[in-house]
Amino acid sequence: MHQQHQELLAALNACVAACEHCASACLQEEHVQMMARCISLDRDCSDVCALTARLVARGSEHAAHLLRECAEICQACADECGQHQHEHCQQCAEACRRCAEACRQGLAA
Amino acid sequence: MHQQHQELLAALNACVAACEHCASACLQEEHVQMMARCISLDRDCSDVCALTARLVARGSEHAAHLLRECAEICQACADECGQHQHEHCQQCAEACRRCAEACRQGLAA
Amino acid sequence: MHQQHQELLAALNACVAACEHCASACLQEEHVQMMARCISLDRDCSDVCALTARLVARGSEHAAHLLRECAEICQACADECGQHQHEHCQQCAEACRRCAEACRQGLAA
Amino acid sequence: MHQQHQELLAALNACVAACEHCASACLQEEHVQMMARCISLDRDCSDVCALTARLVARGSEHAAHLLRECAEICQACADECGQHQHEHCQQCAEACRRCAEACRQGLAA
Repeated sequence: MHQQHQELLAALNACVAACEHCASACLQEEHVQMMARCISLDRDCSDVCALTARLVARGSEHAAHLLRECAEICQACADECGQHQHEHCQQCAEACRRCAEACRQGLAA
Repeated sequence: MHQQHQELLAALNACVAACEHCASACLQEEHVQMMARCISLDRDCSDVCALTARLVARGSEHAAHLLRECAEICQACADECGQHQHEHCQQCAEACRRCAEACRQGLAA
Repeated sequence: MHQQHQELLAALNACVAACEHCASACLQEEHVQMMARCISLDRDCSDVCALTARLVARGSEHAAHLLRECAEICQACADECGQHQHEHCQQCAEACRRCAEACRQGLAA
Repeated sequence: MHQQHQELLAALNACVAACEHCASACLQEEHVQMMARCISLDRDCSDVCALTARLVARGSEHAAHLLRECAEICQACADECGQHQHEHCQQCAEACRRCAEACRQGLAA
């Protein structure tokens, strides 16, 4: 696989893992109610990133469409997670930002 | 869940099952080579429909974006499957057409 | 596809939808903290049921292994959801129970 | 996340990408018919690894069950892919072997 694909896949997989971990950790926080939107976006973001990774890896002609949607949802998740001070939220926000950027670069390529 | 969601979910799930079955059956056909594009589209279509069904079921704010992409890939898969005379291809084409239509109705709602 | 597969797929897909809906609805409840384990099991149960449905639909030789695991996680999710009085939890518990039973019947077949 | 989880996730994600790529490349080979079982196992293996990665990342209590099944299907896919001389098959076999080993280590931990 091309080097560029490898970096995109790494960003997508890192985002899946960060979102899954963040959602689980949010559910253990004292004020879960405040984390409801964060958990919801984590779920969507993880699902869309995981699918996008597979379409990219298989060289699907539909990968580009998913990359566009993926960049958007990663940005939304980054914006929400970035507002919370929990370490898992901050790490998730960073993974989402990197993934959104990697998706945009993948689209431009 | 609303009646409309139920019908959309039924169309999406029927499409997933038809695509999975069609891909497996295509791999058992005598002239697999002719079925390569059909199998590829079946994989993509099943993956995108399965994700869309989950976003719809959870009431995600991102469901609409996926519905648009889903309608497109279902149409592409219907067009390809519809060209083959195998019963599994014809059934898959029909499931894809119904799902594309259900996605477009879901978007219009 | 065989009639028995159709019923199994229907039970699996109904369980996916119920779990996704229940997780989202739990996140909107006043006492989210009490629903944390319910949400966690909903996520796992939905994921495992969705995968199992696809392996069953494609006639995978590994479907049986997943059916066993799926029956177990559906039972765990049914037990947890059944303890909460929210309508979405009660509906989810019922969908999980039916799915666990369908998986066990699928294994016995 | 723990270092051990990171290595397990890396092995699982590498296996997903290798299987997706191998299935697509097999479909482009001259003798697709000979690759039918390889493609089938690639599909199952990718699906099971992708789900396992997510359960591991979220710290699911059900991750161990999936790891056991995942090790088994990775081994089956490695055995099949290892019989074909295509570079994508050999690379996939290697990724599957490493993933099977990582899953067994994850279970032992």
